[in-house]
Amino acid sequence: MAGDGEFHRDQKYLATRITADGRDGWPVEPGRYRLVIARACPWANRAAIVRRLMGLEGVLSLGIAGPIHDDRSWSFHLDPGGKDPVLGIELLQEAFFRRDPGYSRGITVPALVDVPTGQVVTNDFARITLDLGQEWAAHQRDGAPDLYPERLRDEIDDVAEKVFQDVNDGVYKCGFASTQEAYDKAYRRLWERLDWLEDRLGRRRYLVGDTITEADVRLFTTLARFDAVYHGHFKCNRQKLTELPALWAYARDLFQTPGFGDTIDFAQIKAHYYVVHHAINPTGIVPRGPDPRGWLTPHGREDLGGRPFGDGTPPGPPPESERVPPPA
Amino acid sequence: MAGDGEFHRDQKYLATRITADGRDGWPVEPGRYRLVIARACPWANRAAIVRRLMGLEGVLSLGIAGPIHDDRSWSFHLDPGGKDPVLGIELLQEAFFRRDPGYSRGITVPALVDVPTGQVVTNDFARITLDLGQEWAAHQRDGAPDLYPERLRDEIDDVAEKVFQDVNDGVYKCGFASTQEAYDKAYRRLWERLDWLEDRLGRRRYLVGDTITEADVRLFTTLARFDAVYHGHFKCNRQKLTELPALWAYARDLFQTPGFGDTIDFAQIKAHYYVVHHAINPTGIVPRGPDPRGWLTPHGREDLGGRPFGDGTPPGPPPESERVPPPA
Repeated sequence: MAGDGEFHRDQKYLATRITADGRDGWPVEPGRYRLVIARACPWANRAAIVRRLMGLEGVLSLGIAGPIHDDRSWSFHLDPGGKDPVLGIELLQEAFFRRDPGYSRGITVPALVDVPTGQVVTNDFARITLDLGQEWAAHQRDGAPDLYPERLRDEIDDVAEKVFQDVNDGVYKCGFASTQEAYDKAYRRLWERLDWLEDRLGRRRYLVGDTITEADVRLFTTLARFDAVYHGHFKCNRQKLTELPALWAYARDLFQTPGFGDTIDFAQIKAHYYVVHHAINPTGIVPRGPDPRGWLTPHGREDLGGRPFGDGTPPGPPPESERVPPPA
Repeated sequence: MAGDGEFHRDQKYLATRITADGRDGWPVEPGRYRLVIARACPWANRAAIVRRLMGLEGVLSLGIAGPIHDDRSWSFHLDPGGKDPVLGIELLQEAFFRRDPGYSRGITVPALVDVPTGQVVTNDFARITLDLGQEWAAHQRDGAPDLYPERLRDEIDDVAEKVFQDVNDGVYKCGFASTQEAYDKAYRRLWERLDWLEDRLGRRRYLVGDTITEADVRLFTTLARFDAVYHGHFKCNRQKLTELPALWAYARDLFQTPGFGDTIDFAQIKAHYYVVHHAINPTGIVPRGPDPRGWLTPHGREDLGGRPFGDGTPPGPPPESERVPPPA
């Protein structure tokens, strides 16, 4: 927290990459890596969605940290014995320390872990989804969509940057502001951007082009958490998402698209934010609301045209072991 | 706070009364008493509304404690010099101590203060509104409504008791629960009662009979604060009031009835709850939402019949010195 009361996210990640050519020492290889996420975390949620959309479940396994973490680390408290069954560790921190015993930055998800050495290769969330889309091409399912088509990259990058600053990170800037002034500033930016998105999405089905792209994945994971946590817990409360007609229909459209809603676990999302953030919710009591069943109602967005998967196809259902409970 | 994690309101008040016959030593007398409220407080709000409806502004003056209080007392921090201009005190506590130097219970509003002695006569909020309606009859305006008609008293008492337990106090039971179990129980009771009210008010304009009564005054002051504070701050978040069609239209109908909405100051309401309750909002940051302008939109409740003031008439506008800002 800086002296101005504003929240500033530490954006220095382990930037080494898993690539097709293995130039950083970690080549793409089926079965070698484990993607560690937490269902609660919006940044990890992006990677879970892209892995589903690309059909990488069979070549890149999924470790799921539970919703509760302490000052040290996310942990595998939902797994039998409290250990990730593949990595054999209790705290995700252990995988960061195997990579660098002096690692002193945040223990964040998503993290891609090299299973043989137990080392985190990267936790650079923005790069991870792009690399799952591009570098893992040889192992993707037939019909996997192109989420980052060459001709649209400038526009995707531009929209994604605006959404990152004002919305994805913007809700945290509201919730973690330590002064009224810092909060007011973040709130104003958030709602100016949401109004801009509401207008844009009233006229087009997806953020960029006429298919789902990285830009949609990135906005979706924040919208999915909006009414459940950001509205009350982070004081992003001019309106609920459900009061913004275009954004709410857009969010439901994506939720109901295979690969998106089937990664969302509202109970874990609420448990994380309300239990972990002692400084803004000291009681740790988790609200019972809101009722999430509205996510399954018709959205009518087909009328705007667009083809979610372009020339591709939707993914099949997730593996049994990765199923989330229905919104209820 | 009891061992079960549930919030229990101390309901022992100074129970002496100001009556027409003066049997407790404090006879009704124009100009003698001062009603001390805080715009923030729903219990005090009841008295402010009834004073307006009865047209007692000229005979019973109004002291307004500011929204912020400390562990000791409400205070007159909005008044010039931080003192109530009539009572000459900074803390409402002083008026309780003049009545009883050993007074050790809560310093609450509404409080009726005997101006000549500076002593609090009573802070028994439930009795105060009934007495303003009955005991002060000789000094009420022409056309003042009967908020507690003889033939409806049993029904008013019954509805008001349900609303008190589950809604008026119920939102506090949600917000001040210290265990998840206590919160869950309070939340369940609150929403069962709101569903019951939603059903009842879908079929009739007012809670009891076909005019405004004490029952409506008591429900209204909680509804007015629902989206502004109880929804997020107290975790009463199954839905917003604006998502409950009958209750929301009913609340707007009352808000737009002279004597109700003209006592509501949303800025003071939010400042109070979010700043004073350190234990549930340690940052003291006050949310900017929600947008309150919806309170002024048409409600369509006239179609249900009913006559707000029965054979009486609405009160005129409040005195200049008591005006609240419009919802904005």
